[in-house]
Amino acid sequence: MLTLHFSPGSIAVVVAIALEEAGLEYEAVDVGFASGGQRSDAYLALNPKGRVPTLETDQGLLTETGAILEWIGATAAPGLVPDDPFAAAKMRECMFYLASTMHVAHAHKLRGARWADQDASLRDMTAKVPETMTACCAHLEDTVPFAPFAMGEALTLADPYLFVITGWAPGDGVDLAAFPRLLAWYNKMSDRPSVQRVRTRGILP
Amino acid sequence: MLTLHFSPGSIAVVVAIALEEAGLEYEAVDVGFASGGQRSDAYLALNPKGRVPTLETDQGLLTETGAILEWIGATAAPGLVPDDPFAAAKMRECMFYLASTMHVAHAHKLRGARWADQDASLRDMTAKVPETMTACCAHLEDTVPFAPFAMGEALTLADPYLFVITGWAPGDGVDLAAFPRLLAWYNKMSDRPSVQRVRTRGILP
Repeated sequence: MLTLHFSPGSIAVVVAIALEEAGLEYEAVDVGFASGGQRSDAYLALNPKGRVPTLETDQGLLTETGAILEWIGATAAPGLVPDDPFAAAKMRECMFYLASTMHVAHAHKLRGARWADQDASLRDMTAKVPETMTACCAHLEDTVPFAPFAMGEALTLADPYLFVITGWAPGDGVDLAAFPRLLAWYNKMSDRPSVQRVRTRGILP
Repeated sequence: MLTLHFSPGSIAVVVAIALEEAGLEYEAVDVGFASGGQRSDAYLALNPKGRVPTLETDQGLLTETGAILEWIGATAAPGLVPDDPFAAAKMRECMFYLASTMHVAHAHKLRGARWADQDASLRDMTAKVPETMTACCAHLEDTVPFAPFAMGEALTLADPYLFVITGWAPGDGVDLAAFPRLLAWYNKMSDRPSVQRVRTRGILP
């Protein structure tokens, strides 16, 4: 049995959607960010980074969204990873961009204390998030195939990752109407049974 | 023929080391950060993100260090990716941590303008880098096997990635002597022929 430690609406939702797409059963445990659950001794024993997601598997613990996605693909849903190495690399190019650029841009709204100490710095960071997240959406609009899935004809690991982060964009001050290809793909993703199930389970508010 | 667009000492060095480990020939082209080459029209046509690395392959262009590493592994050096899916996921957990946490921590020293506008914010970010990079090194010291390679008995894609970012740590105010397992592994990596060749070619200063 798999156990996914998550916070509602967080990046851990990506893993939940992928587990649903793979048809894997899992228990979902809310870490409880509101009460600082990610800093509890019990949670830090599972994930010393104090972040989500953490996935408990029969072989041990896994963290980092992209790594967990790859494990789901390799063990239970090979169709989510393109067979062709170049196509797989383009999928991973998208995933690493989301992890290292777009998620990081978003995190400067509420998590600026990771990188600066002064209140004025944190306000400055928060104020810039609409600009950086809009630039990320523009990059996606210009470069992602969306034909009809993110990377092409088939759903891949990149789709749930891109879906969750795109879902943060309106709250970060981005007008998604300016990015019609991204928005049309997002709306189609939103209707998938996997996303609906994750909503029903309270993982995606 | 492969062409690697790089800047000396940057994260693109990771790709150069992996290409050397895979025995692949490549042309290395310095993008020229000092003269703003990463913002030239010619370079932005290759990589609209204006970052390094970019790898030109017979099938097209690839960006994002982790994605390029996976492509090298899949096409030319399968031994660099563990066969067991869980072991491969642990390797990728390390790679995504480096991409989304440790590289990002380092970037706040000189690239803070990506996330804030005020000079005082940038100084605040820079001042915090020794703390964040030291915390990253402590996390690696506590969690990476180093037995004797990063993930275990064999060199994997995680080793060059970890090597280059660890090499930034002293310049970021980290005392690596406080992390003896990490330092011993780093010094052994530094002696590898692949690393020596990348130094000889001027890719790693």
